[in-house]
Amino acid sequence: MTVIGLDGDDTLWHSEIYFERTQRRFLDLVGRYVPATDAMAALAEVEHRNLDRYGYGIKGFTLSMLETAIELTGGEISAAELGALLGAGQRMLEHPVDLLPGVDEATAALAAEGRRLVLVTKGDLHHQERKILASGLADRFERIEIVAEKDPPTYRRVIESMGVEPAAFCMVGNSVRSDVLPVLEVGARAVHVPYHVTWAHEHADHDGSVPTLESLAELPAWLAEHAG
Amino acid sequence: MTVIGLDGDDTLWHSEIYFERTQRRFLDLVGRYVPATDAMAALAEVEHRNLDRYGYGIKGFTLSMLETAIELTGGEISAAELGALLGAGQRMLEHPVDLLPGVDEATAALAAEGRRLVLVTKGDLHHQERKILASGLADRFERIEIVAEKDPPTYRRVIESMGVEPAAFCMVGNSVRSDVLPVLEVGARAVHVPYHVTWAHEHADHDGSVPTLESLAELPAWLAEHAG
Repeated sequence: MTVIGLDGDDTLWHSEIYFERTQRRFLDLVGRYVPATDAMAALAEVEHRNLDRYGYGIKGFTLSMLETAIELTGGEISAAELGALLGAGQRMLEHPVDLLPGVDEATAALAAEGRRLVLVTKGDLHHQERKILASGLADRFERIEIVAEKDPPTYRRVIESMGVEPAAFCMVGNSVRSDVLPVLEVGARAVHVPYHVTWAHEHADHDGSVPTLESLAELPAWLAEHAG
Repeated sequence: MTVIGLDGDDTLWHSEIYFERTQRRFLDLVGRYVPATDAMAALAEVEHRNLDRYGYGIKGFTLSMLETAIELTGGEISAAELGALLGAGQRMLEHPVDLLPGVDEATAALAAEGRRLVLVTKGDLHHQERKILASGLADRFERIEIVAEKDPPTYRRVIESMGVEPAAFCMVGNSVRSDVLPVLEVGARAVHVPYHVTWAHEHADHDGSVPTLESLAELPAWLAEHAG
């Protein structure tokens, strides 16, 4: 039976909406000094140049917000305003884990039919572990893999750790860039379940041949039909 | 043959000295506003209260420095000074990986005699992966486990992943709190290799019965004598 890999952020639970909410707070504050469009572009640029340094996750995002705010305002922004950004980052870390529609039922159904599931998620180790715990889903997974980067070597390692060939592995997630393309590259299968917003860095397209589901609720039936 | 777990920070390579250097920079800056002793105590307190939120690692430490500086100066500190702290945190992330004396030779010797080695390190996933890569030691380890917390459940999982009983596992590291006590608690063995500075949060004592080595250089001979 095909082993199923599931992504976490924006596949099992909401994540990007919290980044968007915090970005609005950032634009409110920095928008007092510079045009909001400039602030948005500058933040995206600083985030991008810091990716290699900070990796993924909320702590790095908060540090990039602070850096952008200081740079962009030429040091005019106040410590109190920077403190407000720091606080916004902390509230993100404490956001509740809201499962996406159908996730609870779909993962329960897959676990009940004896599917081997592995959670493959990237970001801060500490924060991801806390979210997985809070999700109440941990017991449905045979393995939990929190990884620094979702690239072909990572997927090869994860698939090997499950003791199957790539052809017997299917990854399911919202990001074409992270959950689909590198998986296809190693010879495994992928199912795309789009989320309504995608971080610019994660944006990519597939050629249209990748199976696409509206929500995780459709996954058990799709697997029954297409993946033994 | 006993499986050997090795800690990373301050066991294989220097780490705490970079935190100390950055703390001095913090004290220089915040010391313009408040007495340095107050600043030191406040930073320790903010770090401690943020541990559950941020976990271990440099990004969380940088965020805690910024938070302390803003709080302690009542928002008087300038954005430029906060920017300097942000930069100090970034330089920490880029510090070179300096192996401790004897580490290269000891790990080479253990690998050459066919010892099964597992690296067990905690902190930022992304930064630890980069350090392991830069260390040049990765190939000597059968497994690399970057963990969020070094507690008994984590050690049970790591030992199980190596397919041995706790009695056939020996952890080697500089932190009594993280590398010795929880390991003894699960019924495995531990060797303490002290580092000359220990972060206050990691401080703990053992009862004196734990084997203690001056440096990792002594490990191969010690294992040959005490651990089959």
